[in-house]
Amino acid sequence: MIQEQLFRYIRKKRSFLCVGLDSEPDKIPQFLLKEKDPVFEFNRRIIDATHKYAVAYKLNVAFYECNGAAGWITLEKTVRYIKENHPGIFVIADAKRGDIGNTSKMYAKAFFENMPFDAVTVAPYMGEDSVTPFLTYTDKWVVLLALTSNKGASDFQYHNEDGIRLFERVLTVSQKWGKTDNIMYVVGATRAAMLKDIRKLVPDHFLLVPGVGAQGGSLEEVAKYGLNNSCGLLVNSSRGIIFADSTENFDKVAGDKAKELQVEMEKYLIERNLI
Amino acid sequence: MIQEQLFRYIRKKRSFLCVGLDSEPDKIPQFLLKEKDPVFEFNRRIIDATHKYAVAYKLNVAFYECNGAAGWITLEKTVRYIKENHPGIFVIADAKRGDIGNTSKMYAKAFFENMPFDAVTVAPYMGEDSVTPFLTYTDKWVVLLALTSNKGASDFQYHNEDGIRLFERVLTVSQKWGKTDNIMYVVGATRAAMLKDIRKLVPDHFLLVPGVGAQGGSLEEVAKYGLNNSCGLLVNSSRGIIFADSTENFDKVAGDKAKELQVEMEKYLIERNLI
Repeated sequence: MIQEQLFRYIRKKRSFLCVGLDSEPDKIPQFLLKEKDPVFEFNRRIIDATHKYAVAYKLNVAFYECNGAAGWITLEKTVRYIKENHPGIFVIADAKRGDIGNTSKMYAKAFFENMPFDAVTVAPYMGEDSVTPFLTYTDKWVVLLALTSNKGASDFQYHNEDGIRLFERVLTVSQKWGKTDNIMYVVGATRAAMLKDIRKLVPDHFLLVPGVGAQGGSLEEVAKYGLNNSCGLLVNSSRGIIFADSTENFDKVAGDKAKELQVEMEKYLIERNLI
Repeated sequence: MIQEQLFRYIRKKRSFLCVGLDSEPDKIPQFLLKEKDPVFEFNRRIIDATHKYAVAYKLNVAFYECNGAAGWITLEKTVRYIKENHPGIFVIADAKRGDIGNTSKMYAKAFFENMPFDAVTVAPYMGEDSVTPFLTYTDKWVVLLALTSNKGASDFQYHNEDGIRLFERVLTVSQKWGKTDNIMYVVGATRAAMLKDIRKLVPDHFLLVPGVGAQGGSLEEVAKYGLNNSCGLLVNSSRGIIFADSTENFDKVAGDKAKELQVEMEKYLIERNLI
């Protein structure tokens, strides 16, 4: 999928919502534990209830990996379920990988060849040769960490050389490794005001923005500072949607929560003449 | 395992060698492909041939993950094989993980609860709360990336604020998150001359040093600048040992290569009065 296709899909669905499948085994509704693969059953019902309002899903790999090989099977089943039933949807492996070239190549193989993910989140610390192996695939994306939503972001990401903070250097330098059709950046919603400055450095790239909802970020602010002429945003909500309810109705409630966000997003897209 | 136990084991084995099981499925000897789990069989024979000369094994998770769930089963079988047959050996999951707190907690569970790894390599970009979940386990370690051995290390790791480079800030700041009994640092052997400066910042911590052999680092230089009063070094060699030969004799040749490094290490340990 290239940027133009993603934008077209956003206009069609009137949404730039990414639903985060942070499906922590201990947090899914207890009645699902009788299922053979409870996490997959949880995901399936969440996907069926939310796909109308979403353009992307983000699978947080840690929440599968914590179950070992069985968790990897659930991960694979989930991405295949999305791709088979909703082929237009963009699916991100939130894996925060990154290693020397020959090793990143193997991580890329894991997510892009063995599984049909569209994108992988990658940590920038090890530099160019840790990222470029993911960029050799046609129609696949790297989502590179720039400014994250957590408290620890301030430990190193603001390290400032002559007025250029580390996350700004990441944004500037890494642009040369790929193009707007295969690199996005993670910018946390808890730093929405920073989006204004970030848009000066990456006016045309898509940004994946986590942290709306449970982490306290404001969708209104993110839209205000982050939207560009191709939308340029995927805003992720995980816990606020998938764990909004733990009864038999959890999927319906998740759908309602996703719809609330979609309706708000539609408003911002209209205000900016994007739809 | 605490630092003192690791040092005792190093003295006993007269070695600070870590053998890297970067067991890329396409590179193992072809005659092993008839086995049910060729990579495990390869690892088992490498471990049996090299354990006398090694104090640690490092399993590069990407080379297992590239086989999906089946690869994760091989990973788990390998770490259990080492722990059951050679209980004193320190086993590192080279995974380069790191995410917001609730997610890093799940990665820690994957490697420390579901599998008996002693340590996980972690990327520092996301700061304190991405690292500390790994430090809540007794006798388990974080191996934090500081200065890596690859070309891309220069893209961001030298980002310099008032004379303090990013990797130096990582070394200084992260020391406060744990202790010398649960944090080590990755410092690439290709930067051996930098070890002198690094030892000023972390005189007492263990350093995991990859890059000797295939990546061109010199063991002599690493020992010269890196050894401290508790040895303080685990030097990793992967391809130079495990892929030194591709015949039926690959394990014997791997053992010979490991022994060569052990003999050289023993010399440095004697020179420094550590044994």
